[in-house]
Amino acid sequence: MAEAGSLIRRLVGSLSGAASGMVRSKDARRADRLARVLRTLASEKGEATGAAMARRSLTMYSGLGREGRLRFFEILARDFSPDREAVLEAAQAWHRDPSPANHAALQRFVEPPRQEVFRRMNMAPGGTAALVGLRDALLGELRERPHLAVVDQDLSHLLGSWFNRGFLELRRIDWRTPAATLEKLIAYEAVHEIHGFTDLKRRLENDRRCFGFFHPALVDEPLVFVEVAFVDELPADVGPILAPESTVGDPRRAKCAVFYSITSCQTGLRGISFGNFLIKQVAADLHAELPNLKTFATLSPIPGFRKWVEKRGLSVDAAPRETLERLASWYLTRAWEGGHIVDPVARFHLGNGARLERVNWMADGSTKGVAQSFGLMVNYVYDLADVERNHEEYVKSQKVVRSAAVERAAREAEPLLGA
Amino acid sequence: MAEAGSLIRRLVGSLSGAASGMVRSKDARRADRLARVLRTLASEKGEATGAAMARRSLTMYSGLGREGRLRFFEILARDFSPDREAVLEAAQAWHRDPSPANHAALQRFVEPPRQEVFRRMNMAPGGTAALVGLRDALLGELRERPHLAVVDQDLSHLLGSWFNRGFLELRRIDWRTPAATLEKLIAYEAVHEIHGFTDLKRRLENDRRCFGFFHPALVDEPLVFVEVAFVDELPADVGPILAPESTVGDPRRAKCAVFYSITSCQTGLRGISFGNFLIKQVAADLHAELPNLKTFATLSPIPGFRKWVEKRGLSVDAAPRETLERLASWYLTRAWEGGHIVDPVARFHLGNGARLERVNWMADGSTKGVAQSFGLMVNYVYDLADVERNHEEYVKSQKVVRSAAVERAAREAEPLLGA
Amino acid sequence: MAEAGSLIRRLVGSLSGAASGMVRSKDARRADRLARVLRTLASEKGEATGAAMARRSLTMYSGLGREGRLRFFEILARDFSPDREAVLEAAQAWHRDPSPANHAALQRFVEPPRQEVFRRMNMAPGGTAALVGLRDALLGELRERPHLAVVDQDLSHLLGSWFNRGFLELRRIDWRTPAATLEKLIAYEAVHEIHGFTDLKRRLENDRRCFGFFHPALVDEPLVFVEVAFVDELPADVGPILAPESTVGDPRRAKCAVFYSITSCQTGLRGISFGNFLIKQVAADLHAELPNLKTFATLSPIPGFRKWVEKRGLSVDAAPRETLERLASWYLTRAWEGGHIVDPVARFHLGNGARLERVNWMADGSTKGVAQSFGLMVNYVYDLADVERNHEEYVKSQKVVRSAAVERAAREAEPLLGA
Amino acid sequence: MAEAGSLIRRLVGSLSGAASGMVRSKDARRADRLARVLRTLASEKGEATGAAMARRSLTMYSGLGREGRLRFFEILARDFSPDREAVLEAAQAWHRDPSPANHAALQRFVEPPRQEVFRRMNMAPGGTAALVGLRDALLGELRERPHLAVVDQDLSHLLGSWFNRGFLELRRIDWRTPAATLEKLIAYEAVHEIHGFTDLKRRLENDRRCFGFFHPALVDEPLVFVEVAFVDELPADVGPILAPESTVGDPRRAKCAVFYSITSCQTGLRGISFGNFLIKQVAADLHAELPNLKTFATLSPIPGFRKWVEKRGLSVDAAPRETLERLASWYLTRAWEGGHIVDPVARFHLGNGARLERVNWMADGSTKGVAQSFGLMVNYVYDLADVERNHEEYVKSQKVVRSAAVERAAREAEPLLGA
Repeated sequence: MAEAGSLIRRLVGSLSGAASGMVRSKDARRADRLARVLRTLASEKGEATGAAMARRSLTMYSGLGREGRLRFFEILARDFSPDREAVLEAAQAWHRDPSPANHAALQRFVEPPRQEVFRRMNMAPGGTAALVGLRDALLGELRERPHLAVVDQDLSHLLGSWFNRGFLELRRIDWRTPAATLEKLIAYEAVHEIHGFTDLKRRLENDRRCFGFFHPALVDEPLVFVEVAFVDELPADVGPILAPESTVGDPRRAKCAVFYSITSCQTGLRGISFGNFLIKQVAADLHAELPNLKTFATLSPIPGFRKWVEKRGLSVDAAPRETLERLASWYLTRAWEGGHIVDPVARFHLGNGARLERVNWMADGSTKGVAQSFGLMVNYVYDLADVERNHEEYVKSQKVVRSAAVERAAREAEPLLGA
Repeated sequence: MAEAGSLIRRLVGSLSGAASGMVRSKDARRADRLARVLRTLASEKGEATGAAMARRSLTMYSGLGREGRLRFFEILARDFSPDREAVLEAAQAWHRDPSPANHAALQRFVEPPRQEVFRRMNMAPGGTAALVGLRDALLGELRERPHLAVVDQDLSHLLGSWFNRGFLELRRIDWRTPAATLEKLIAYEAVHEIHGFTDLKRRLENDRRCFGFFHPALVDEPLVFVEVAFVDELPADVGPILAPESTVGDPRRAKCAVFYSITSCQTGLRGISFGNFLIKQVAADLHAELPNLKTFATLSPIPGFRKWVEKRGLSVDAAPRETLERLASWYLTRAWEGGHIVDPVARFHLGNGARLERVNWMADGSTKGVAQSFGLMVNYVYDLADVERNHEEYVKSQKVVRSAAVERAAREAEPLLGA
Repeated sequence: MAEAGSLIRRLVGSLSGAASGMVRSKDARRADRLARVLRTLASEKGEATGAAMARRSLTMYSGLGREGRLRFFEILARDFSPDREAVLEAAQAWHRDPSPANHAALQRFVEPPRQEVFRRMNMAPGGTAALVGLRDALLGELRERPHLAVVDQDLSHLLGSWFNRGFLELRRIDWRTPAATLEKLIAYEAVHEIHGFTDLKRRLENDRRCFGFFHPALVDEPLVFVEVAFVDELPADVGPILAPESTVGDPRRAKCAVFYSITSCQTGLRGISFGNFLIKQVAADLHAELPNLKTFATLSPIPGFRKWVEKRGLSVDAAPRETLERLASWYLTRAWEGGHIVDPVARFHLGNGARLERVNWMADGSTKGVAQSFGLMVNYVYDLADVERNHEEYVKSQKVVRSAAVERAAREAEPLLGA
Repeated sequence: MAEAGSLIRRLVGSLSGAASGMVRSKDARRADRLARVLRTLASEKGEATGAAMARRSLTMYSGLGREGRLRFFEILARDFSPDREAVLEAAQAWHRDPSPANHAALQRFVEPPRQEVFRRMNMAPGGTAALVGLRDALLGELRERPHLAVVDQDLSHLLGSWFNRGFLELRRIDWRTPAATLEKLIAYEAVHEIHGFTDLKRRLENDRRCFGFFHPALVDEPLVFVEVAFVDELPADVGPILAPESTVGDPRRAKCAVFYSITSCQTGLRGISFGNFLIKQVAADLHAELPNLKTFATLSPIPGFRKWVEKRGLSVDAAPRETLERLASWYLTRAWEGGHIVDPVARFHLGNGARLERVNWMADGSTKGVAQSFGLMVNYVYDLADVERNHEEYVKSQKVVRSAAVERAAREAEPLLGA
C-alpha cells in the first residue's frame, strides 16, 4: 500500500518537478481537479450538464498559476492522448478492410481525447478566448518542454479549423469603432508603433483605411489588421505616412494604396494565416470603391537584412547606398532556405503572389528601421491579375517575380558576395 | 488493361446509370472538373488563390445535378480518403515511439484529405451553408450507397466542430424579427404546424416566447427553435395554446413556462445536438427575467406510442382512457432499447435530465396527434437543480425519473401487457 | 350673463350629449381630469415631474372613449387658446416698437398654450405616436365641428416641424425587414392592394425595391413608402408588375425604374408632404447604384378621370380607346382649378416637377382601375435635371410639361369637349 | 439716385463695419447671396427643389467668415421678421372674431419667416448640426448686438421643440462606445477635467456608469452626460472617485450612486434643459438594475461660493472649517435672487427636487475647487419619491429642503453675516 502510494506520488509528482514524496502544491492540485472535471466533461454522453461543467472548467483554468498550468499541460499530453494499442488495431483493421465502420473507428481512436476536451471547454461563454490564451501559454513552454508539442498540434489543428476564413468578418476600423478595439490596435501594432489615441486618429482619417478580420466569438478583438494610406505614387519613405500632423488628402484622387503595416494580433493563433486573405480582400474592395486607385503595394521592412549582412561579414562602408541596395536586392531574391526566401516579410508577400518592385534607401529612419535593415524598406506590388501566376512561380519554380531594376541591382551584388 | 479499364468504367458508369463504355454525361464531367479544382485547392500550399478557387468550387458544386453530385460524392469517398499504407506505417511508428513528430505524422496521414477539401470550400462566401446543403444531399443517398458513409463521417465531424455551442448565438425571435427568418419558422415547424404569418404572430405575442440558436455563418437561418407559452399551471391540452384567437396574457403573472414545440431546422446538421442546450439556456434566462415562473415544462408528443401499441396488438377498447394512460406510462418508463427509452421525444428530454411528470388524455386532438398517440401528450419537467442528477439516473442507472402518478399508472399497465 | 352661461353650458353639454344641468358622463369627467393634468404640466416651470406627468397624461388620453376625446378637443380649443386681450396688446406694442423684448412677448402670447401641451405630452415614451393618433381622431371630427380646426392648426404645425425631412430616415424595405413593418405595408398599401406576405415577398425580390421614410420616434412605422420595379422599357401595363409568379429579373440590366405605387401611411400626418422628397431621393440613389437605369418614371392611376368624364356627360362609346386617351390627355393637362390640375395624382407628380409622358390604354384592368379611369394609367417621368424647371413651369406659368404625343391627343380632345 | 444708393450702402455697410461708400467685402456678398437663396427656399411652394437648395444653403453658410455671418444674422433680423402691419391687422381681426380662419392667419403672420428658413435649412443632411452651430455663433454676438436677440428667440424656440425629451435617446457610454463620442466627453467635461483616454477608461469601468442623451440627427454627439460612481456611502471627497489608479469595485454591493459630474455639451443648445430628465431617468434605471443601491446623490461644486464670500468681505481666517461650512450652508439655503437660489448648481438640483444633504470640507482639493469654493463640495440627494414635493416647496414656497445638519449650520452662520 505504502509503496503503491509512493509510486503514484512519484509518477504524479514528477510531472510538476516536485521531488517524490513531497506534497503537491495547491496550484498543482487545482490542475488535477481541473483534469478530473475535463475527463467527466469529455466522457459525458448525454451532455446534460455540459454547459455548466464547461463554465466550471474555464473558471478553474483561469485560476491556475504557472505551475498549475504546466501540470495541466502535462496531464493533457499524457492522459488525453490516443490509446496506442487501439490506434494500431484500428489502423490494421482499416488497412485490411477500409469499410465505413473501420474508417469511423480509425478516426475515433486516432483523434486524441484532448480535442474533445477543447471542444467542450469552448462551449462555455468566453471559451474560444480562453483556448486562444491557453495556446499562447502553451507556446511559451514548448521550447523547454518539447514533448508538450502534441498538445499544441491538437489545439492548433482545432483553432485552424475554427478560424477558417469563412467564419471571419472583415470590418473597417475607423474613429467610430469602439475604443475597446482601438486600444488593441495601439497595443498590438508591431511594425510602426502607434503613440496613443491621437496618433491613431490620424491613421484613421479620410485618406487612410484600416481593416481587420474579426471572429464572432472574440468580440472587439482584431485577429489581424492592415493599415492603408492613399498616396499619389509608390512611396519611398514611410516618414510622411507616419507623420501625425500631415494634411488629410482626398482618397478619390489618390493613385496608389499603400499597405504600410500588417499586424497579427493573437499570439495564441500563431501559424494560422489570415494576412494573405486580408490584403487581397482589402485590395479588391478598395479597387471597387475607388476606381482611381491604380497601384496596390506595400512599404515593408526587411527585418532580417542587417543580421544577414553582418553574419556574412560584408563591408558596406564604401558607397553604402549602392552597396546596400544591391545586397538587399540579392538578399530578397536569391537567399532561399527550405524552399523559401529567408526574410520573413519577403516570404509572406512573395508567397502571396506579390511582385518585388523597389528597394528604397532611407525609407525608415527610426532606430528600429536602421537596426533591422540600415533604414531600407521595400515595395511589394499586389497586382490581383498576376497574383496567381506570381505565386506559382514562387512556389513551383522558386522564382521571385521582380522588377528589372531589382534584378539588375541583385546581379550587381554578386561580385560583392564573392559569388 | 482493357478489362481493368472496363471495370473502372463500369464502376464509375454505374453510378450515373450510364452503361459501360458510354460517354460520361455532361453533369458527370462537371463533377470531375470540380474534383480536379478541389484537388488543387486542397494541395495548394501558399494559398495564394485559395479564396478565388474556393468560390469557383462552390459555383461548380451548385451547378451539379443529382447525377453530378453522386459522382462527386463517389470521388470524395474514393480519391480523398487517407492513404492506407501511410496510415498503417504512421500508426506503427507512433506505436513504437509516441514522439511529437510521430504524433503529428499520425494525425496528418489519418485525416482524410476530404476534410481539408471541406475546410477550403468553407472559405468562400456562403461556404458553410453550401456544406450544410451538401451533407443534406449526401444523407439522402446513404441508404442506397452505404459506402458513402465515410464522406458523411468526415463532414459531420467537421460540422459538429464548427457548430460548437460556443459559436452559437441565442436570439429571441419575435414580430420584429426579419420576415426572412420568420418564414423559415413557418416552413420548418415540425411539431404543431404554423398556418402562415397570422398564426405565427399569435405565437410571438407578449405571453409567448420563441428563441432560436443561430450560427454567424448562416444569416437568418435558425438551427433550432423552441416555442414557449406562459400559462397558469402545467397544461394538459395543447389546444388553447395553439388557438390563434386567444387572449394575450400577462407574462409577469404566469406560473409556468411551457415548451410546447422544439424544432431542429437543418437536416444537413442531423445528429448535431442543439436542443438540449437551448431548453436549458432558455429556462435559465426566463427564470432570471420572470421570477414568477415556478415550473418549466414541456407539453410533448409521444410519436411512437400508437405504433408500439398496435405492434403489440394491445386492445384499448375497454376503458380506453385509463388503458391508454397506463400503457403510455409503461411505454415511457419501461420500453428501453440499446440503453435508451424507445420513444424519440422521451429519449431526448429524459436524456437531458427532465422528469416525466404527467400523461395527458386528449391533449392533442389533431389528426396527427390522434394518429401518433391517440391524442395523448406528456409533460416533461425541467427542474434545473435536478437536471444533472436525473440525467445520471437515466444514463448510468437506466432509470426514468418520474412522478408517483406516472409510476402508479405504469405498474397498473403490467397486467395489460401480460408482464 | 345668465344667458351666456347657459349658452356655454349648452354648447359644452351638447358635445357629450348631456342635457344642460345633467351630470357629466364618466368619460367626460375623465377628459376634464386630463385637461387639469395638462394645465399643470404646461404651466410647470421647474419641470421637476414633467416626465412622470407626461406619462400619466398619455395613459389618461388613451383611456378616453369618443365622447371623452371630443370633450377633450373642445377644452383644448376653448381653454388652451391664446389670450385675446394679451395678443392684441402685444401686437400693438410690437407694432409701436419692434424691440426684441416686444418680439418675445408677441411670440409668447400668440402661441396657443395647446402647443406647449402637445410638446409636454410628447416627452413621454410613445408620445409622438399618441399625438399622431390624436390628430387622426381630431381630423375625423372636423367636418362636424369645424371650430376644432384651431386645435388642428396647432397640432399640424408642430407635427410638420417635428417630421421635418432632416429628421427622417430613408430605409430600404426588403424581406429582411422586421415583420412588424412589413405587415404595415400590407395594411397601408393604397394603390395596388398587397395580398398577404407571399404577394409582398414578390414585391421585395431582387428586381424590385421598396423604400420608406421613417421617423426615429415611430419605430417600425413607415411614414410613406414607394415600390419600384426594374423593367426594360417604360411600362404600359401594371399587370406584369403585380403578377405574383413572374420571373425575377436582373436589376443590373434594367433600363427603367418604375415607381408603381406610392403610399402615405399615417392619416394623422395628412397634409405633411414626404412623397416628393422620397421619389427624388430614391431616384438619385438608384441612379448612383445602377448606372444602367436611364428612365425614372411612374405608372400612375388617374383617380378622378372617370368621375370627371361622367360628370360632363361625355360619350365614350364610339372608338372608346382613342376617345378616352384624348380625354385623359386633356384632363391631365388642361383641367385646372385653383392653380392646380384637378386630378390629385397628377397634381402631386407635376407639382414635383415630373413630365407627363404617356397615357396607357388598359393598363390597370382591376375593378378599381376600371372604376376610376376606365383602366387607363399614365407615366410621369422624373428627369432629375429637369425637375426644377418643370416645377417652375407648373407653379409659375401654370403649364404642364408633357410629351408631344400627349399634347396632340389633348388637342384632338377639344372637339369632343365642345371647346 | 446716387444719394439713395449711398444711403443704402451706408445702411448696409454699417452692418459689417465697412465705411460708407466702400465696396462690400467678398464675405458680405456671400452672405447676401445666401439670403437670396433662403428667400427662394422659404417661399417655394411646391418644394420641388427644396432638398437641393437646402444643401446649397448649408454649404454657403459654412463658407462664411465672421463678417459674412454677422451680415447674415443682420439680414435674418431685418428681412425675415414678421410684417408689422399684417401682424397688427391679424391680431385685431382675431380679437374681433376668434374664428379658425382668423386664428390661422394670426399664427401665419406672427411667425417670423426666419422659422421657415431654419426649417428648410434643416432638411439638408447635417442641417440640425449646422443650426446648432449657427446658434452657437449667434450667441457669441448677442452681447454686442442685442438687437439680434430676435433671431435667437426664433432659433431657440425651434431647437427647443426639436430637442424635445421625446426625441432624445438615453445611451450608456462605456469603453465599447465609438472613440468619436468618447473624445467629445474628454473635450466637453466641464466639472472634473478628463486627462485623456486612459483617465476616461477608469471612469467607464464596471463600478462606474456614464449616460448621455443623444439626438438622432446629431450622430456621435452627446447633448449632456452624467458620470456616476458606485460607492459604499455618501461621499465627502471627490478625490478617490477621480483617482485614475483606484481598485474597481463591485456594483452589486454598492449602497450609493454618486452623480459626480454633469456636463451639457452643446453651447448652441444653451437654455434647453436636459440635465433634469437625465438624472432622474438614470436614477430610476439604476434603481431597477441594482436594487442594492439605496442612495442617489451628487457630489457637487459650489461654483459661486467664494466669490460671494469675498464680495461680502467676510473673514474666514479664524476656525476656517466651521466658518466656511456654516457660510456655505447659509449661502445654499438663504441666498435667493429672483425666486432662485443664486448658486447655479444649487439652483439646478434644488429646482429638480433634490434635497440639500451635506456640506463637505476639503472635498475638492484641486486648484479650481479651492478657487471656486475653498475646496467645499455638497451632496444633493435625489429621493425619487420626494422629488415632486421638494420641487413644489422650492418653486412655490421658496424653501430649500435640507437636512437638519445643514439647517443648523446655516443658522449658526447668521451672526457671522451680521444678520
